[in-house]
Amino acid sequence: MNPAGELSIGDYIDAERARVDKELERVLPPEEEPPYSIHKAMRYSVLAGGKRLRPIICLESGRLFGVDDEVLLSAAAALELVHTYSLIHDDLPAMDNDDLRRGKPTSHRVFGEAMAILAGDGLLTLAFEILSRPGPIPAELQLQLIHELGFALGTHGLIGGQVADLAAAGLEVKEDTLQYIHRTKTGALICASARTGALIAGAPEDDLARVSQYGEAVGLAFQIADDLLDVLGSERELGKAVGKDNDQHKATYPAFYGVEESRRIARRLVREASEVLAPYGDSARRLQQLAQFLITRQS
Amino acid sequence: MNPAGELSIGDYIDAERARVDKELERVLPPEEEPPYSIHKAMRYSVLAGGKRLRPIICLESGRLFGVDDEVLLSAAAALELVHTYSLIHDDLPAMDNDDLRRGKPTSHRVFGEAMAILAGDGLLTLAFEILSRPGPIPAELQLQLIHELGFALGTHGLIGGQVADLAAAGLEVKEDTLQYIHRTKTGALICASARTGALIAGAPEDDLARVSQYGEAVGLAFQIADDLLDVLGSERELGKAVGKDNDQHKATYPAFYGVEESRRIARRLVREASEVLAPYGDSARRLQQLAQFLITRQS
Repeated sequence: MNPAGELSIGDYIDAERARVDKELERVLPPEEEPPYSIHKAMRYSVLAGGKRLRPIICLESGRLFGVDDEVLLSAAAALELVHTYSLIHDDLPAMDNDDLRRGKPTSHRVFGEAMAILAGDGLLTLAFEILSRPGPIPAELQLQLIHELGFALGTHGLIGGQVADLAAAGLEVKEDTLQYIHRTKTGALICASARTGALIAGAPEDDLARVSQYGEAVGLAFQIADDLLDVLGSERELGKAVGKDNDQHKATYPAFYGVEESRRIARRLVREASEVLAPYGDSARRLQQLAQFLITRQS
Repeated sequence: MNPAGELSIGDYIDAERARVDKELERVLPPEEEPPYSIHKAMRYSVLAGGKRLRPIICLESGRLFGVDDEVLLSAAAALELVHTYSLIHDDLPAMDNDDLRRGKPTSHRVFGEAMAILAGDGLLTLAFEILSRPGPIPAELQLQLIHELGFALGTHGLIGGQVADLAAAGLEVKEDTLQYIHRTKTGALICASARTGALIAGAPEDDLARVSQYGEAVGLAFQIADDLLDVLGSERELGKAVGKDNDQHKATYPAFYGVEESRRIARRLVREASEVLAPYGDSARRLQQLAQFLITRQS
């Protein structure tokens, strides 16, 4: 608790994470349901831990406009499923070839490449299946959020970013390429997470615009912080290999702007993200704290 | 033309295929749109040819209940996109390791493994994005077809079938495993294709049930015919490697029942598929001819 009797940001995140984890546990098919191995692989990667940043942003964004958690939770969980899909596929030998993720061996190291590819496919598919289930959200809004998520995950969003990232490896990248990669590979889904909550709330266009600006700024700040941790962090704290970006000559902010300038940019983005939510006063407090937390975290 | 002045089944399929190809051309992002390489890879596999069986079944099923092609076409195209995604991922070295598909080198042979994985991901994502676009279909129906497609593609459908297929390779499989693989790996999506047309038409439950029965029977007959072609066909006609199922000790109907009994089962399934549509009289003619065509085709 802090002096105001409110949970500290760390305790708040832990509590929210527990709520999201419970929902993930609920929406994932049980391990004992055939075909066994794929459900085991899907659960392994999703339930391996993780900050649950995207679901929490979605929940807070919905709460900003007065929506109950019960209405938001399955969409929030779907956002974590698609995030995990992207991690599993990015970690594959043909892509970034990572052995460690969230402190555990990556999916393909445990289940083999075929199962890792299928587990990613399964999580992506499950997310869309969940988002289209009949529920309390008006059908038109449900369609809109599926559509926006589809776009954010597609070749003009997350997949496009991964393509550009792979293409840029080992090359001298320009500033606009670096920004394109970060905006699409990380930014698009974080922005979609913020919008999902507000969309479910039926928020009008100007509110959606503010929430989008928040999501874009936070998404970019988060990726810069991630790049900085890759340079400065320890493998034990991060739960994944460090220094890999540099080894693989990846396009990163520290490599382009240097560490100090990257930190300055991240701080500016967090300030912008906070300011854009100022009209909501105290209701936006947690979203503002989350933005701040993202650039000060050690893992 | 046949004596009744009607297109022969072959000419009919060619005409329908041209219509579907035009729609696929329209919904796929242009090659010159960045990031270039992924759109090139997606277009390569989708536009490499193919029977367009799933979209044509969807179109015919919708026409059965009086829906205009314009309302059906984008959903029909989405079905082909997800089918192509499944082929690209199935062909990967970690899966079936195929070099040839639809008479051309497989995606990973042309664009590399990373791009093939991402092209598959991109097609799956694009399909859901297309299906959720605002359009003439009532939002509730649109959601239902996204939901059903999600289920058909998921771990209890297509992905489940692929998992079971990989798990069964090299093992003595039981009859129920063989049927599970065929029902899920091929049947689920063909059944969903038939249902999609009827769903868009707002067909009532008993019509949906008939169309589902048709789809299930045709899906299984089609897979048996495919297994038979793998044993008996020529590589040139098929546009993919033959005899691979046997080399890889795959679970197939001919391996389990023998060639003659497999043919008999396929014929029975086609008869069942035709009979279930008898209540629609002449309107169901094309769907019945398609079922027949599938088991007599040479490629």
